[in-house]
Amino acid sequence: MKTILKNVTLLPEYGYQSNPVHITVEDRRITSISTELPDTAGCEVVEGKGNLLIPGFYNIHCHAAMTLFRGYGEDLPLDRWLNERIFPAEDRLTAKSVNVATKLAIAEMLRGGIVSFSDMYMFEDAVADAVAEYGIKANLSRSIVSFDPDIDIRADSRFTETMDLIRGYHGYDDGRIRVDLSLHAEYTNVPRACRDLADYAKAYGFGMQIHLSETEKEHRECIERHGKTPAEFFLSTGVLDVPVTAAHCVWVEDHDIEILAQKGVSVAHNPVSNLKLGSGVMPLRKMLDRGVNVGLGTDGVASNNRLDLLREMQTAAILHKGVSRDPAITVASEMLPIATVNGARAQGRTDCGGIAVGNRADLVLIDRNSLHNMPAYDDYAMLAYSADRSDVMLTMVDGRILYRNGEYTSIDEERLRYEAREVFAHYFD
Amino acid sequence: MKTILKNVTLLPEYGYQSNPVHITVEDRRITSISTELPDTAGCEVVEGKGNLLIPGFYNIHCHAAMTLFRGYGEDLPLDRWLNERIFPAEDRLTAKSVNVATKLAIAEMLRGGIVSFSDMYMFEDAVADAVAEYGIKANLSRSIVSFDPDIDIRADSRFTETMDLIRGYHGYDDGRIRVDLSLHAEYTNVPRACRDLADYAKAYGFGMQIHLSETEKEHRECIERHGKTPAEFFLSTGVLDVPVTAAHCVWVEDHDIEILAQKGVSVAHNPVSNLKLGSGVMPLRKMLDRGVNVGLGTDGVASNNRLDLLREMQTAAILHKGVSRDPAITVASEMLPIATVNGARAQGRTDCGGIAVGNRADLVLIDRNSLHNMPAYDDYAMLAYSADRSDVMLTMVDGRILYRNGEYTSIDEERLRYEAREVFAHYFD
Repeated sequence: MKTILKNVTLLPEYGYQSNPVHITVEDRRITSISTELPDTAGCEVVEGKGNLLIPGFYNIHCHAAMTLFRGYGEDLPLDRWLNERIFPAEDRLTAKSVNVATKLAIAEMLRGGIVSFSDMYMFEDAVADAVAEYGIKANLSRSIVSFDPDIDIRADSRFTETMDLIRGYHGYDDGRIRVDLSLHAEYTNVPRACRDLADYAKAYGFGMQIHLSETEKEHRECIERHGKTPAEFFLSTGVLDVPVTAAHCVWVEDHDIEILAQKGVSVAHNPVSNLKLGSGVMPLRKMLDRGVNVGLGTDGVASNNRLDLLREMQTAAILHKGVSRDPAITVASEMLPIATVNGARAQGRTDCGGIAVGNRADLVLIDRNSLHNMPAYDDYAMLAYSADRSDVMLTMVDGRILYRNGEYTSIDEERLRYEAREVFAHYFD
Repeated sequence: MKTILKNVTLLPEYGYQSNPVHITVEDRRITSISTELPDTAGCEVVEGKGNLLIPGFYNIHCHAAMTLFRGYGEDLPLDRWLNERIFPAEDRLTAKSVNVATKLAIAEMLRGGIVSFSDMYMFEDAVADAVAEYGIKANLSRSIVSFDPDIDIRADSRFTETMDLIRGYHGYDDGRIRVDLSLHAEYTNVPRACRDLADYAKAYGFGMQIHLSETEKEHRECIERHGKTPAEFFLSTGVLDVPVTAAHCVWVEDHDIEILAQKGVSVAHNPVSNLKLGSGVMPLRKMLDRGVNVGLGTDGVASNNRLDLLREMQTAAILHKGVSRDPAITVASEMLPIATVNGARAQGRTDCGGIAVGNRADLVLIDRNSLHNMPAYDDYAMLAYSADRSDVMLTMVDGRILYRNGEYTSIDEERLRYEAREVFAHYFD
């Protein structure tokens, strides 16, 4: 089955100066981009006249199942929020509640043009089932937490769960699901666990997801504990020899940024979560200038409360101007790669994140004709500053249309609402 | 003609603990709120089952016609942006282009639940015509700019325009349009003009709109020039004896906040514009603690690029947590009054901004059942953190439904698009 996206406009960076173009999609991939309309016989045709086709968004830091906790325990200091609200609530999680909450998360992400997400959580097999069913891409991980300095990681239940996850889902559906390893953070792990997991990742070629220097306290206490910053700690334990996605990096110092750049670490910038939790503002400009691969993440719903990459992009696009007091410190056109191809790179998906023949067809059609986007003098400014999530007309993953004009193709919305209400109704009983 | 909003949910602050309720609207006002359904014969009935009814949003700082410049001249330093882009573009404004751009602005505002805006610009009669036609409320002003220390303000063309505006529109349609006086800012006015306009405002009972301490440079140079901060300057010239809305207030000092509180000045907080232009972050917590009446503004599209109060509210709700590094510094329930009743108060509209019998019926219905709002444990958190502009199901101004389920009742959308394209196509020729 071929799909043709007809009369779409591409941004100049994708190399087609003459717009509109017609994009042919077949067997998960873009097979042609042409100014002449190909033969449409037997094809599904999507009319894109006047609208902008962009790569789908990558959400490279998420705890999808925390959708369960939207609006639960708001506006508390961090320690009370975690200890009085989130940890007790997480103790009650089941595979069923994680599965349903993840499905709700995926529905929200697809509607906002997100084609892939990276996840760190528990019951990841229930997350994987939701991903498999709904058609989005994901890099899934079960985070290791370790406090015994002599831990044998291979005997740890979280490692065993990771192994089961790899056997069950790694590479599923032509690589749509990937499994990463994960260390929750420096402050929740002993050096031996970090070294052993890094060795395993290197031996078998896995990527890794970690939290890094999210709060000042975490950063400072690591220095007190180890005489090293979190980045130096992970460097010294071999973790950064692995393809790593490091979430937050709010408190990294200049020499930490140097380490991240040299080791090819991908950084997940979570501007909304970092503001809402009072963590601070990541030094984005320094990272970009040093060549760090920066992508965007939403973090979990409990600290956001949306799974909306467009909003993360738009928040990043104004936040760094504001806190640096330099309106030219970032420019609109820098934001789209951060939201798309950099995220694909972080996930180890080298054939994703761009618009070119041979690439995976992970595509989003944006309505440029909304009244709130008029006049559209500058498409990059439209994406970075004015576009609404409701401007997403179509979300395609691996060549499959999953969302179009307000309707899902892989999701029975009424059933999802029913399942979600059932889970929510009894969760805090 | 009566309208009944049936089965809507109200927040506890409006005093009806038992939900749902039914709201009757007649002759611009709320005439009853009851748990028993009134007789609906001959009434227009809006079913609101499961959804949240809130007061409409007030956008108390705007330059609506700058919608013309959306995406034009992005990401430049402030002086280059103004001198190379905005000022030359503004030189080409005509009544026609201002009228059409304002209509586009009103369409965007109504869709996002904004029921009233405050405007400072040129060709305000063309703004007024758009407001009159489309049914939104507005406080309109033509800003005075003066550099001659001996100016006779009554001979100034901007003052004459203001007088024409007052004669033509002040009180129009049962007060739907009000005219304010305006001094653009301290740095664009001589003391005599400030004193004379303040005297006029006091004599005839007008409110005033001003810019105040938006940038550090403005604040510092005022101290160098007058030995006073901008707030002290306006205090000394009698301007603060008038009901004033002061936009921005990013750089106000503690004693300035004291002045604003004592003089009953309303502050228009514009978090998105202040970030995008690199101006900084207003001390919101200090102002609220001191009892200053703070509302929200979008500023003009050129520095935003949206006219979206929900987004201003959501940005404010996380921004102050982030920069103070205290997630408890503001709470979700503080945000709604800032976006609604405080704005009505700033506009001198004492019978607006609340939900009570006798109030003007300026109401917005919010879809709580969107997938991205589930679970809705906390309606205040939904509004402050997760709701989308697309959740606005209905916008009512003075009892008249102007927007409902994606359709405008007072706007011919195709005609507006046509007019807007005509203006945009030739604007920069």
